[in-house]
Amino acid sequence: MGISLGELAVRFGCELRGDPDVRVDHVATLAHADSQSLAFLANPHYRQQLAMTAAGAVVLDAASASECASAALVCENPHATYARIAAVLHPFPAAVPGTHPSAVIAPGARVDPSAHIGALSVIGEGAVIGARVFVGPQCLVEEGATVGEDVRLTARVTVCHHVEIGARAVIQPGAVIGGDGFGFAQERGRWIKVPQTGTVRVGADVEIGANTTIDRGAIEDTVIEEGVKLDNLIMVAHNVRVGAHSALAACVGISGSTSIGRRCMIGGQVGIGGHLTIGDDVIITGCTMVSHSVPRPGVYSGGIPLEEAHVWRRLVARFKRIDSLAARLKALERNTSRGPDQEEDDD
Amino acid sequence: MGISLGELAVRFGCELRGDPDVRVDHVATLAHADSQSLAFLANPHYRQQLAMTAAGAVVLDAASASECASAALVCENPHATYARIAAVLHPFPAAVPGTHPSAVIAPGARVDPSAHIGALSVIGEGAVIGARVFVGPQCLVEEGATVGEDVRLTARVTVCHHVEIGARAVIQPGAVIGGDGFGFAQERGRWIKVPQTGTVRVGADVEIGANTTIDRGAIEDTVIEEGVKLDNLIMVAHNVRVGAHSALAACVGISGSTSIGRRCMIGGQVGIGGHLTIGDDVIITGCTMVSHSVPRPGVYSGGIPLEEAHVWRRLVARFKRIDSLAARLKALERNTSRGPDQEEDDD
Amino acid sequence: MGISLGELAVRFGCELRGDPDVRVDHVATLAHADSQSLAFLANPHYRQQLAMTAAGAVVLDAASASECASAALVCENPHATYARIAAVLHPFPAAVPGTHPSAVIAPGARVDPSAHIGALSVIGEGAVIGARVFVGPQCLVEEGATVGEDVRLTARVTVCHHVEIGARAVIQPGAVIGGDGFGFAQERGRWIKVPQTGTVRVGADVEIGANTTIDRGAIEDTVIEEGVKLDNLIMVAHNVRVGAHSALAACVGISGSTSIGRRCMIGGQVGIGGHLTIGDDVIITGCTMVSHSVPRPGVYSGGIPLEEAHVWRRLVARFKRIDSLAARLKALERNTSRGPDQEEDDD
Repeated sequence: MGISLGELAVRFGCELRGDPDVRVDHVATLAHADSQSLAFLANPHYRQQLAMTAAGAVVLDAASASECASAALVCENPHATYARIAAVLHPFPAAVPGTHPSAVIAPGARVDPSAHIGALSVIGEGAVIGARVFVGPQCLVEEGATVGEDVRLTARVTVCHHVEIGARAVIQPGAVIGGDGFGFAQERGRWIKVPQTGTVRVGADVEIGANTTIDRGAIEDTVIEEGVKLDNLIMVAHNVRVGAHSALAACVGISGSTSIGRRCMIGGQVGIGGHLTIGDDVIITGCTMVSHSVPRPGVYSGGIPLEEAHVWRRLVARFKRIDSLAARLKALERNTSRGPDQEEDDD
Repeated sequence: MGISLGELAVRFGCELRGDPDVRVDHVATLAHADSQSLAFLANPHYRQQLAMTAAGAVVLDAASASECASAALVCENPHATYARIAAVLHPFPAAVPGTHPSAVIAPGARVDPSAHIGALSVIGEGAVIGARVFVGPQCLVEEGATVGEDVRLTARVTVCHHVEIGARAVIQPGAVIGGDGFGFAQERGRWIKVPQTGTVRVGADVEIGANTTIDRGAIEDTVIEEGVKLDNLIMVAHNVRVGAHSALAACVGISGSTSIGRRCMIGGQVGIGGHLTIGDDVIITGCTMVSHSVPRPGVYSGGIPLEEAHVWRRLVARFKRIDSLAARLKALERNTSRGPDQEEDDD
Repeated sequence: MGISLGELAVRFGCELRGDPDVRVDHVATLAHADSQSLAFLANPHYRQQLAMTAAGAVVLDAASASECASAALVCENPHATYARIAAVLHPFPAAVPGTHPSAVIAPGARVDPSAHIGALSVIGEGAVIGARVFVGPQCLVEEGATVGEDVRLTARVTVCHHVEIGARAVIQPGAVIGGDGFGFAQERGRWIKVPQTGTVRVGADVEIGANTTIDRGAIEDTVIEEGVKLDNLIMVAHNVRVGAHSALAACVGISGSTSIGRRCMIGGQVGIGGHLTIGDDVIITGCTMVSHSVPRPGVYSGGIPLEEAHVWRRLVARFKRIDSLAARLKALERNTSRGPDQEEDDD
């Protein structure tokens, strides 16, 4: 059982330093590995653990290989290579074709015979479930929705009417794709619901986290392009577009009609206003408020690290009087006869 | 098929500039409309698109009507009029009366014969489902809960025991109305659960977004008054009251026992402390921390827009030393013999 | 019906000031109590209501007892004593043993005969449901998961494969325990999913709020220790550890591999970065960004209270120019011949 290091080296293009006949059958951390374990080193923080690991083999880069106490699978990108090997050692259970007898499939739904429909799931009228799709228990795919091949709706996923899910997407429990956008017209202090007639289009290879919500478009569609990774409890409002291969950490909120570029990385709890444009390759660190567009690539921040409460209260009190600080400085400058040219940027 | 502009003008009180026999059958944006489309202009940002739209008709105000390339339905509040017409062109599917055979209805539940109960929904003992209610698939209405007439529980909505939902409310998937409030008494470093004996009362015409949670009261009730609109992933803690016709954007958190007034507008990710009072007609912009009561109407803010990370780090470093800045300024003032009267507000 | 004050005094160790034969049968607030009500006073804010309460009895401490218009149950910790009495007056409905006929139980699941499995719940292959467990309607306990005795999965709870839930835990609707962690390796601008092979271990007496998500570990486990209380819409990322008896308010986000100590209290919407260590007995107030470790006990803050928008905009504008303020101050110090020793901390 397991896989030999020799086979792994060949399949994943690694240089093997060690016995090719050693076999590994599961993954482990460097610290807790045993002789059947495959471990990896990507974060230099853990480098010191190499010398003492009991792993059967470690995936790492050439620079670290000499420090490794066990066999080494040397490659350029240890994290990516580890990910691929781990997927072989710990595959998703295959989607056993067939429909659980408790599932409710509308007569006009088209479910590929190779798909799996779990217990108590509901597939609506006109929905299309592609080849080898895994629909876990208690999922809901409403009328007219399309689920591409090899998609995994892990469990209790809601795919609302006419939503399109691209091939190989993975959606975690509790996610809601295609609820109504938050669209209301104001009239004499009351709100009138604006029908949300668009849908959501999710590209191929997207992952969507637990209890994340993606609203359907008001008129046109909300779009999540291919390869995007969304963590848990994210809010994507109507008519947002998230560009290909961007990754958003948990608790991010994106307001309506904002467009995010390709390959962006957005930290946790970032809040992004509506009708903005974030360009390609923009990185925004956690807890940042984005209230204007960010067209150029780069790293952006807006969060202030914590302090002990008594220190923080004093800082905030000073901040609230920063206007008076500036006024006093200006008065002082006048008193000491500095010219007006230095002042102009501060009024 | 569709509706003639003449009929729309009469039903919705618009002045028609164009051919009353032209018919529209769906909505579209100005940019992507065709001759069967109804579009609208409410945001001046899109005004330039009027001259080139291919829409069958555009709903707009008198000031913009002359620029419109197509027929115009002129009215005072184009967004509200558009919302009403769109609801005619894209109606909710009617709630087909009847209960799906897979639904589980407790013997003592009272379901109006005109209501629709979807696949795999559960209606508990003593629950009351009003006339023309639409209960989508996989919803849960627990024992003793009351759902008013014409309510739409879209799908997978949780209405906990004894919760009351007012007429015409619309609740999106994943929302949880009436989970236990977060009430614990501390005793020697441990927490003892305080039974949450209140419930949640949701008024008429309320909308509740996907995966939003509204906790039941500790002793008395959590109250969402009529016409309130709650976006996705909002947290309403126990004993909160949200006043009529207030609108809260996504990811807002409201701590226990806080009262929010009528017609408030709260931006995304705003955090509101406990036991506070927000008055009527208060507007709070996104990402603001509300840690004290806000009795008076007005617009309030507390978020700082992002900067490039290297600029931001420098700003934060300066901020963290603002105390020393103030001290140095004061020393300088002493050196230059300014009177003590200007200093007093800054210590 | 109800319970006599005499019995309550004996069972809960209170000094009774009043008639031991008076009976109470429900809880109420001081303001709305009637003669069958039990009320309590823990928050001094409500002390003035003591003189006018119509309660049958009030749980309070000795210092307040003399002001109470009704019978008093005097004890050291009124909130804790109230919690215990309220649990007697308003018990959870007992878990009626047995499985609803609509539930789907895998042949290899082990369900204790004293457990209750609600309508349309799913129990997976190899899952273990302990004695007296209450599994409400539409819950999901996936394959290999373990649910300890006396646990309450209130309704629509998702317990993913191989997750362990400790005894007496209470989980509110919509919570997802054990979704995949957000683990991806980057390779040439794309993301490769890293299998999440750990699980989640939830200790005894934990409470988990509605729509909260706790991700499974990447290799080792995510751990919630005994007695932890998590409010709604919290995100606990993979490999996080939350120490015993800590309490986290709603909308908190904790990034991967962070460790939180014992008896911590974390306010609402706090964002905590990855790979950090928060020590025991740390209190963090709401809306704080935690971007570095906090080893020592204490109270920490990072949120700035709101202002009227026009005041706030001015403060932010000043803040954005704080560098220029500092530079001007320094220039002024040079002009007035202050020594360089005071300047050194500010560049």
